[in-house]
Amino acid sequence: MNINLNYKKSKDNYLFVEINERVKKFRQTHSDLHILNLGVGDVTLPMDKKLVKVMTDALNDQATEKFKGYPPETGYDFLKTAICRYYKKLGVDISNEDVFVSNGAGCDVGNILNLFSFSTAVIADPTYPAYYDSNILCGNEVILLPLTKQNGYKMVIDGLEEKSYLIYICSPNNPTGATMTHDDLKKWVDFANKTSSIILFDNAYQSFIEDHCPKSIYLVEGAKTCAIEIASFSKSAGFTNLRCGYTIVPKELQREGQSLNAMWNKRQCTFFNGVPYHIQKGAEFALSDEGEKICQKNINYYKQNAKILKSCFKGMQFLSSSNSPYIWLKIPAKFTSWQYFEYLLNEYNIVCVPGSGFGKFGEGYVRFSAFAKREDILLAKQRLAT
Amino acid sequence: MNINLNYKKSKDNYLFVEINERVKKFRQTHSDLHILNLGVGDVTLPMDKKLVKVMTDALNDQATEKFKGYPPETGYDFLKTAICRYYKKLGVDISNEDVFVSNGAGCDVGNILNLFSFSTAVIADPTYPAYYDSNILCGNEVILLPLTKQNGYKMVIDGLEEKSYLIYICSPNNPTGATMTHDDLKKWVDFANKTSSIILFDNAYQSFIEDHCPKSIYLVEGAKTCAIEIASFSKSAGFTNLRCGYTIVPKELQREGQSLNAMWNKRQCTFFNGVPYHIQKGAEFALSDEGEKICQKNINYYKQNAKILKSCFKGMQFLSSSNSPYIWLKIPAKFTSWQYFEYLLNEYNIVCVPGSGFGKFGEGYVRFSAFAKREDILLAKQRLAT
Repeated sequence: MNINLNYKKSKDNYLFVEINERVKKFRQTHSDLHILNLGVGDVTLPMDKKLVKVMTDALNDQATEKFKGYPPETGYDFLKTAICRYYKKLGVDISNEDVFVSNGAGCDVGNILNLFSFSTAVIADPTYPAYYDSNILCGNEVILLPLTKQNGYKMVIDGLEEKSYLIYICSPNNPTGATMTHDDLKKWVDFANKTSSIILFDNAYQSFIEDHCPKSIYLVEGAKTCAIEIASFSKSAGFTNLRCGYTIVPKELQREGQSLNAMWNKRQCTFFNGVPYHIQKGAEFALSDEGEKICQKNINYYKQNAKILKSCFKGMQFLSSSNSPYIWLKIPAKFTSWQYFEYLLNEYNIVCVPGSGFGKFGEGYVRFSAFAKREDILLAKQRLAT
Repeated sequence: MNINLNYKKSKDNYLFVEINERVKKFRQTHSDLHILNLGVGDVTLPMDKKLVKVMTDALNDQATEKFKGYPPETGYDFLKTAICRYYKKLGVDISNEDVFVSNGAGCDVGNILNLFSFSTAVIADPTYPAYYDSNILCGNEVILLPLTKQNGYKMVIDGLEEKSYLIYICSPNNPTGATMTHDDLKKWVDFANKTSSIILFDNAYQSFIEDHCPKSIYLVEGAKTCAIEIASFSKSAGFTNLRCGYTIVPKELQREGQSLNAMWNKRQCTFFNGVPYHIQKGAEFALSDEGEKICQKNINYYKQNAKILKSCFKGMQFLSSSNSPYIWLKIPAKFTSWQYFEYLLNEYNIVCVPGSGFGKFGEGYVRFSAFAKREDILLAKQRLAT
């Protein structure tokens, strides 16, 4: 038995733990203040009553003759069919066998690494921390591509050696909010096919896209032979607590004579036991025409929040595409990210996320999240105006 | 990017898929027959109404101001506290920080391998297939220890070189039903401490133990410095569909200067996003005094099933400890396991699991499960008597 020594190499990255501790400490000496949390990227609106009823009805069945045991490891066919139907409406043809229902995109993003060994990952800097951390824990090399004002806060290929990589693309991006156009993605798809790389496309924020940017990487020609798409009901349907997502591994995706689809199927059937029936019934409803309308209402609410937030930063430099719930604010040069975090907390009692928590190139920025309650967004606006 | 070539080495082990296909084929030509499934180890009784109500109430909160977002990665404190209280009643002192709530023991059994690299696993033959398959997929070596009539169908150390291993112990055992006594476990704990091995103790069937065999490995002196215990609400509270289990990694467990507790905490915070609130509320209720009584009723029902089943095999050689929902039947020498499976299916319209599906030393046996409905067990008895 040998310990996985990569755990030694990995630094503790408890960004949100650190934020919570600083806020807690501040609260201890300022218990009278209403602190506005515009930090964490977690939804706050209650779920729709009908959506919840679909799930409680199905859960109630567990106390009846309709009782269900182990769910199928890769998802019930009714949900896979609903997912395929949703993609069909986007203009993408996939089949039930390409779809693997899971307990969330966050889990799949890490677990997918079991299919690879001794690989080099290409990851944006700043980035969603789990991409980086999971690769370090699995002993992979990491190449960080800076997201800067010059490249529009998007990963660009320039200068990347033509080798076979695991390429992480999150679009709309967390934390910068930048969204890849069809042309942006086409360049990466062509690069991946040429170099036998694999793109891991994190689509967690697709439901916020309102312009012509692709809502699936499979809208880009050639993607099915190089890309795995990981998606979630967390942000679109408010499922962060309920845990349901899915990963698409097209049967066309082969490497070294192996079908990645067959490999992921084996991984999930060995290491995973499926998602509860009632949760999958809820996810199915969220994808129905009625459910989509219901979910869109919440998304519009968060988008309106983002607009209000943006109006607070007039005269400052920030990135907020209309496709993203995040605002990526360039802070005055005299502050580090953590200093600005402390400044906002102390002066305005507002919590943001220091950009440096997402990587070296996040220094000089902070991230605001529009996933807050409207009243908190309006209060933040009032405070920042004074 | 390199493919994990261990996937090539791993054979397809779709034991239950194969069984289902054979049954399906039989059904096609015998659609009039009532086939009794005494194969799969999945619970069949509806859950208690009150237990379900606890969960639907908590789920209904998601449509109100009590809405909850991301659950804590390692579990809500209320459930950890309930688990510690349960262990306290068994006579084991653990603290909330030792407990990691998860979406099921089956997942943890596989995912725990992320903490190790290039290790040698010691696994019983016959075995629950996931132990073997997950180790092959992670590139580990496997040493199989035969479970035979001679050793009481329990893993024994005799002849095992004194090296550092990952040692899988499932007690009560799946598939044989044999249960480790305190003395049996003490030998393994001493061996593990002496050789710096780690015991992965799969406790999925602990609630079936009715004699003096330990319901936790931590009842054995020295276990906290060598053992990880993986447990589940699947069989005790009928949670196979709802997905909730937990893993105990004592803070005392260190290897190569690393705290396994800290490593598993990092693994879960990076690769996992927690279990839904309402499911954890249900698990908490299952551990309450009232919940325990309710769950015990179902367990007694399955135990009674096992007794009835045993009475069918008078004169045949079988193992069924009173601690197990499984019966491990020695079949007549003229049959292979699969031949006996076909014989039972064709002659009696009863489905069992061929022992060879659990490993080479399972050949010559079949497994019956008591997790069926009483009426099916009684019908099986009638048919087998004729």
